[in-house]
Amino acid sequence: MATVGKVIKCKAAIIWEVGKTPSIEEVEVAPPKSHEVRVKIVATGICRTDYHVLKGFFPKLDYPVIAGHEGAGIVESIGPGVTCVKPGDKVIPLCLPQCGECSCCRSPKDNCCLKTHFCERPQNLMPDQTSRFTCKGKRIHHLMWVSTFSEYTVMPDASIVKIDNNAPLDRVCLLGCGFPTGYGAAINTAEVAPGSSCAIFGLGGVGLSIIMGCKAAGASRIIGIDINKNKFAKAKELGATECLSPDDFKKPINEVLVEITGLGVDYTFEAIGLVETVTAALASSHMAHGVCVVVGEPPAGSHLSVDPVLLITGRKLLGCCMGGFRLKDAIPKLVSEYMEKKFNLDALRSHVLPFEKIGEGFELLCSGKSIRSVLLY
Amino acid sequence: MATVGKVIKCKAAIIWEVGKTPSIEEVEVAPPKSHEVRVKIVATGICRTDYHVLKGFFPKLDYPVIAGHEGAGIVESIGPGVTCVKPGDKVIPLCLPQCGECSCCRSPKDNCCLKTHFCERPQNLMPDQTSRFTCKGKRIHHLMWVSTFSEYTVMPDASIVKIDNNAPLDRVCLLGCGFPTGYGAAINTAEVAPGSSCAIFGLGGVGLSIIMGCKAAGASRIIGIDINKNKFAKAKELGATECLSPDDFKKPINEVLVEITGLGVDYTFEAIGLVETVTAALASSHMAHGVCVVVGEPPAGSHLSVDPVLLITGRKLLGCCMGGFRLKDAIPKLVSEYMEKKFNLDALRSHVLPFEKIGEGFELLCSGKSIRSVLLY
Repeated sequence: MATVGKVIKCKAAIIWEVGKTPSIEEVEVAPPKSHEVRVKIVATGICRTDYHVLKGFFPKLDYPVIAGHEGAGIVESIGPGVTCVKPGDKVIPLCLPQCGECSCCRSPKDNCCLKTHFCERPQNLMPDQTSRFTCKGKRIHHLMWVSTFSEYTVMPDASIVKIDNNAPLDRVCLLGCGFPTGYGAAINTAEVAPGSSCAIFGLGGVGLSIIMGCKAAGASRIIGIDINKNKFAKAKELGATECLSPDDFKKPINEVLVEITGLGVDYTFEAIGLVETVTAALASSHMAHGVCVVVGEPPAGSHLSVDPVLLITGRKLLGCCMGGFRLKDAIPKLVSEYMEKKFNLDALRSHVLPFEKIGEGFELLCSGKSIRSVLLY
Repeated sequence: MATVGKVIKCKAAIIWEVGKTPSIEEVEVAPPKSHEVRVKIVATGICRTDYHVLKGFFPKLDYPVIAGHEGAGIVESIGPGVTCVKPGDKVIPLCLPQCGECSCCRSPKDNCCLKTHFCERPQNLMPDQTSRFTCKGKRIHHLMWVSTFSEYTVMPDASIVKIDNNAPLDRVCLLGCGFPTGYGAAINTAEVAPGSSCAIFGLGGVGLSIIMGCKAAGASRIIGIDINKNKFAKAKELGATECLSPDDFKKPINEVLVEITGLGVDYTFEAIGLVETVTAALASSHMAHGVCVVVGEPPAGSHLSVDPVLLITGRKLLGCCMGGFRLKDAIPKLVSEYMEKKFNLDALRSHVLPFEKIGEGFELLCSGKSIRSVLLY
């Protein structure tokens, strides 16, 4: 049943222009139009991609913008035509939509719904090319159609999924981006085999989720790599069998990894977002069957330099978005698995802050002191 | 039973130094040592890799050298310890060994035997670091341990396989390199699915073999790409459903391919050996599940430039050597399949020349007039 809503005034964090820290403002959130849903966000994580928005790493993005894409909340109202959720439902916004209708959604091996921004349609405005956010009379842009840094936010029904009503929203919000991105890279994209060796470059929230995926897949050797040794204890707690800092070696880390594994690591993952570490991860992988997965998103315009001989002996270079998960199908299952304690999502939540302390959350991210900060409204 | 052999004098084509055309000479071929086999080559193809030897594209290769690696012959004598073949057996020399003992040979998914030159052990001399070839008192180097441009040649027993004694050697010689390299790239490495679309960049012997592999795998659309339109008729005969020349379009060919397929080609193959065409092949592949296979070997020292966003949406960049085949296991089966007419190997044999006309064979290759020239001793 569609409800006719009114404009809601609430708090939101607006990035007015590139380089400016988010500013807490009162925004007006218009009611959902046809096939749209308005959600009261309860909790949201801060992801490095939000920091990239702050720094202007996405050249096609329009400002001012409300970032945030790793949230969980409760449906406030729905527009005409919405059947997948109803007011009061607990939901997770999907930063990668699943429309169910495009050729990618109809192909079981694809997860990049053609409504995604990767398909050169910026999700910076709603599908009808308007915004639901206004502040001080100005139009404010959406991010990935979810904008969870607003207490109330509107999204298309392709970008939302109902979850178990018993799920703790202040925890499962991390299923909106970081966890599936890493976990799925291991279990879906790399298809890590039992007994294999894995190396993970970058031990942030995504890297730690990759470790959990490798462990769940039965890898016997899981090597965590980071220049920040403070990350090692958590990595080992979650499944890393050893951790290395490239700073401790005179040789390049790829040579070290090949040496300690004989012919290279079976599966390597780049979860930093630097082309140099992708090159190292590929060169670290097993000569004849190594799989290297690009998980971190390098800055727009950057290019990987790949020695073709590395591929010709049998290595594979793969990438994935949201860990290859089709989010509308996957997230309710991941919520159930979390509630059955099949993986330790809580370990990623290093800090919990009131929404107003979003600036502190970004500082914790940049200083490497947090894994994930969760903001509560 | 080992036989004690004598030095054999015979004809061979020697590349005395980089850039010199092969010169027909009388060489002395020493008898096989322990775990070595001496073979009378009956027929040999000329492959582009031999041309690369001529041009000095392999920086670690020592000259003078006897090239040729796509041959078939008959065992003349065996050294102590050889059990896999006996004198009189019809055989194909393997330019990628399969020792059966190294960790790669013991792993069913790998095909790069650790005895291969890819593992930084040049196969330019026999495993004991000596040569079996002498000419005018000078030591002549081997190529990939097979050197089929000599009427008699010596190879390790890891680099030879017995085939059906009814096989026509002047035809199955092409199973030594070009055909499995292309055919296997489609059926083993890409694992082309029935009903899918494929694009092949480069319609030489390897590219045509890829087309045959795509057809055998049940692809429904097979697009051949070459700037030499004389290649199109044969490509269509072997399974291409359409052929395109990049010169006929103002747009880059990758944009054309994405346009005519909607979201890109399911499987793309580079069979030229240029980094620029690998970039185009990757960009031509389907956004969410495209597989791009590097089959041609780009010049030593060249690097691919890869836009990471192409991978993050779900594309895969793979490579392979000898089409991912484990040659000792695969070649006898391919010989049987050829004899059962399961693929049209004969279509690759465009020219048959006496061995002495090897120079003419190289000219036909460079001018794009031949697919494969087969030389007969």
